[in-house]
Amino acid sequence: MKAEIISIGDELLIGQVVNTNASWMAAELNTAGIRVVHIASVADEKPAIKNALDQAARRADIILLTGGLGPTNDDITKSTLAGYFDSGFVFHRPTFEHIRSLFAARNYPLTPVNKKQAEIPEKCTPLPNRNGTAPGMWFEQNSKIFISLPGVPFEMKPLMNEQVIPRLREKFTLPHIYHKTIMTTGMGESWLAEKIKAWTDSLPSNIKLAYLPQPGIVRLRLSATGKDRTKLETEVNRYCRSLHDYIPKAIFGFDDITLEEAVGRLLRENNSTLSTAESCTGGYIAHLITGIAGSSDYFKGSIVAYANSIKTNLLGVSEKLLESHGAVSREVVEAMALGARQKLESDFALATSGIAGPTGGTAEKPVGTVWIALAGPGGVKSKLFLFGDHRGRNIRRSALAALNMLRLELFSQASEMPCEK
Amino acid sequence: MKAEIISIGDELLIGQVVNTNASWMAAELNTAGIRVVHIASVADEKPAIKNALDQAARRADIILLTGGLGPTNDDITKSTLAGYFDSGFVFHRPTFEHIRSLFAARNYPLTPVNKKQAEIPEKCTPLPNRNGTAPGMWFEQNSKIFISLPGVPFEMKPLMNEQVIPRLREKFTLPHIYHKTIMTTGMGESWLAEKIKAWTDSLPSNIKLAYLPQPGIVRLRLSATGKDRTKLETEVNRYCRSLHDYIPKAIFGFDDITLEEAVGRLLRENNSTLSTAESCTGGYIAHLITGIAGSSDYFKGSIVAYANSIKTNLLGVSEKLLESHGAVSREVVEAMALGARQKLESDFALATSGIAGPTGGTAEKPVGTVWIALAGPGGVKSKLFLFGDHRGRNIRRSALAALNMLRLELFSQASEMPCEK
Repeated sequence: MKAEIISIGDELLIGQVVNTNASWMAAELNTAGIRVVHIASVADEKPAIKNALDQAARRADIILLTGGLGPTNDDITKSTLAGYFDSGFVFHRPTFEHIRSLFAARNYPLTPVNKKQAEIPEKCTPLPNRNGTAPGMWFEQNSKIFISLPGVPFEMKPLMNEQVIPRLREKFTLPHIYHKTIMTTGMGESWLAEKIKAWTDSLPSNIKLAYLPQPGIVRLRLSATGKDRTKLETEVNRYCRSLHDYIPKAIFGFDDITLEEAVGRLLRENNSTLSTAESCTGGYIAHLITGIAGSSDYFKGSIVAYANSIKTNLLGVSEKLLESHGAVSREVVEAMALGARQKLESDFALATSGIAGPTGGTAEKPVGTVWIALAGPGGVKSKLFLFGDHRGRNIRRSALAALNMLRLELFSQASEMPCEK
Repeated sequence: MKAEIISIGDELLIGQVVNTNASWMAAELNTAGIRVVHIASVADEKPAIKNALDQAARRADIILLTGGLGPTNDDITKSTLAGYFDSGFVFHRPTFEHIRSLFAARNYPLTPVNKKQAEIPEKCTPLPNRNGTAPGMWFEQNSKIFISLPGVPFEMKPLMNEQVIPRLREKFTLPHIYHKTIMTTGMGESWLAEKIKAWTDSLPSNIKLAYLPQPGIVRLRLSATGKDRTKLETEVNRYCRSLHDYIPKAIFGFDDITLEEAVGRLLRENNSTLSTAESCTGGYIAHLITGIAGSSDYFKGSIVAYANSIKTNLLGVSEKLLESHGAVSREVVEAMALGARQKLESDFALATSGIAGPTGGTAEKPVGTVWIALAGPGGVKSKLFLFGDHRGRNIRRSALAALNMLRLELFSQASEMPCEK
């Protein structure tokens, strides 16, 4: 089964927006056993879209389009498709009611444009879009399938996962490709590769390994192909378990679980609470943790002590300590962690103090110097890190390193990590 | 002058790699006055590349290819191009000497594969690649130009900037394309479109408008084409100024400035400091602000009061208030803002309290209910928002709404916003 993706939007052609939608969709289709043979980015213009449709229909069985469906440019993709399939328009009441309820919830007035959004080509099956006003559209012609989706990622992704992939699975018998992603942190890509070389060499030919590195995290993706899904799963899980022996501390979970989610689970299992005292991370650790639903069960709060006066007044770090060691020091970061644990009444407290950059570095403490402390029932410990010179990445890596310190602490108290979720 | 980009590589079609090369190239070409009309990603296979070349030659005057030139797969793009242009191969001594010197510098032995890399199609002009072994290739046929570049970004980018763009500028008289992006917040896309309809209709045909919406923010991109760059800039800036009359409060800046950056500038100009008291946003406002270099000049810190005990102990919100009105209420959020302003010793303080979801909603206060308060020298004000049911987006939209409240407060005190940066 071959697919083609057509991304519609001038912003792609002027290089303002990177086409992340297409790669996300390609990965999802691939996982479902559908091979993407071509990706095209075309302009918000009828002839360009029509031309792309013609060419795609010659190459692929399934053609997916994204973009050109918003309220202000709905006539482009929708009217092009209606013309392409020689279809009139009908007013689709469920879509209109959905738009009305979305607008009512946000207290926005309905405009004539919104009413027009509920008009859809007669020949399509509308795919309900729970996050936006424009529905997806599913057309079939000459045993080819054409699917049009909005370009906004948070509208497109649920439509793909909840509507498009299940409908395609129902329609075709797709081969099984089983992917499992192993999430690791605390080790660079090349060091990891060295450590697991023997394991990598032991993989059978139907299981492929890919390294997907991000700052602070390396994902290892196993892709297994075969006829029997249960057998594939068992085989892949067996290799996951054996990998654990090579890198017992680096694996924090599977299948795109985030580090903050893994830490949250451990805190919950442990019946422990957490707080943070953040200087260089500026609230980013708290943000990561509170991004997880239900985190109020184990997260008490944070004191973002950007100004030194807050380190003193709210965290109880003595002025003398700040003067003699500087804010970026073992002494201060440990005092911050202890202060947060006490003031925010939590079992554990993480603290960060560092130089995120791009300015503020010295010969002794260059940009990227970060102290991280963890206070807990057993006392306080701290560690020095040297990251790079990019502010955003320094903040991100500091937060991940802090979460990982807590994970390893909780992990050492917990039983063996299971391979299955 | 129209261009097309063909990106060659299976990794793009399985979604493992995002096609950042194509968007970077598109932006460079666009800046040089060359319009990219199509971007295609195709497999590492001869028929796919040949097919893409045929189609591109029908659409564009300049066809750029990347990928498929490495030492392990050099026969794909190079031999496909040689076949396409009916060209034999010649041994290119300067390329060979370059490869030899690269290998000597790294102390690597030369292999027969490397020698083969110095064989190039007779009909091409080689473009020296100072960062790699495979040269770029420039072909001309039927007054179309075909340029093949390596896919590795740090080889491709210097080749584009130092060879391709200068050669294209020499060959053609290129028009100017001037882009300006207007950043707006606080208004949905369709409402905005209604409000600026008359202005949109007044745009001349050489200036195009595009809507680029994100949760909480709508970007308006103007693209102007003409011969005289200075005249274009003046014209676009004049339209920017006149747009300001239609939506005086919505525009927070230009050219991809973030809202937190705009607010930071206003705080700095105003000589004012800020702190936050965050419940539902969980530190995200502090994170956005501290993501900006130099924010320590105006940001004091934050109290992330996730647990009610922290609202009481650290922000001074009375237990009675929490009991009688609930944490998500005008009374509590105003007390939080006033508490933060006092405890963190800042001129302004933003506070948030809401139900981010997915659980915790009631009939009276559904998921997405968010109270935001701003305390300042003139007192405290607050506003109720109703966002959607997605936790991450509720957090993001709450933070943007809070920053926008502060922006409008500072903005009302400042002079007129200039259109130029």
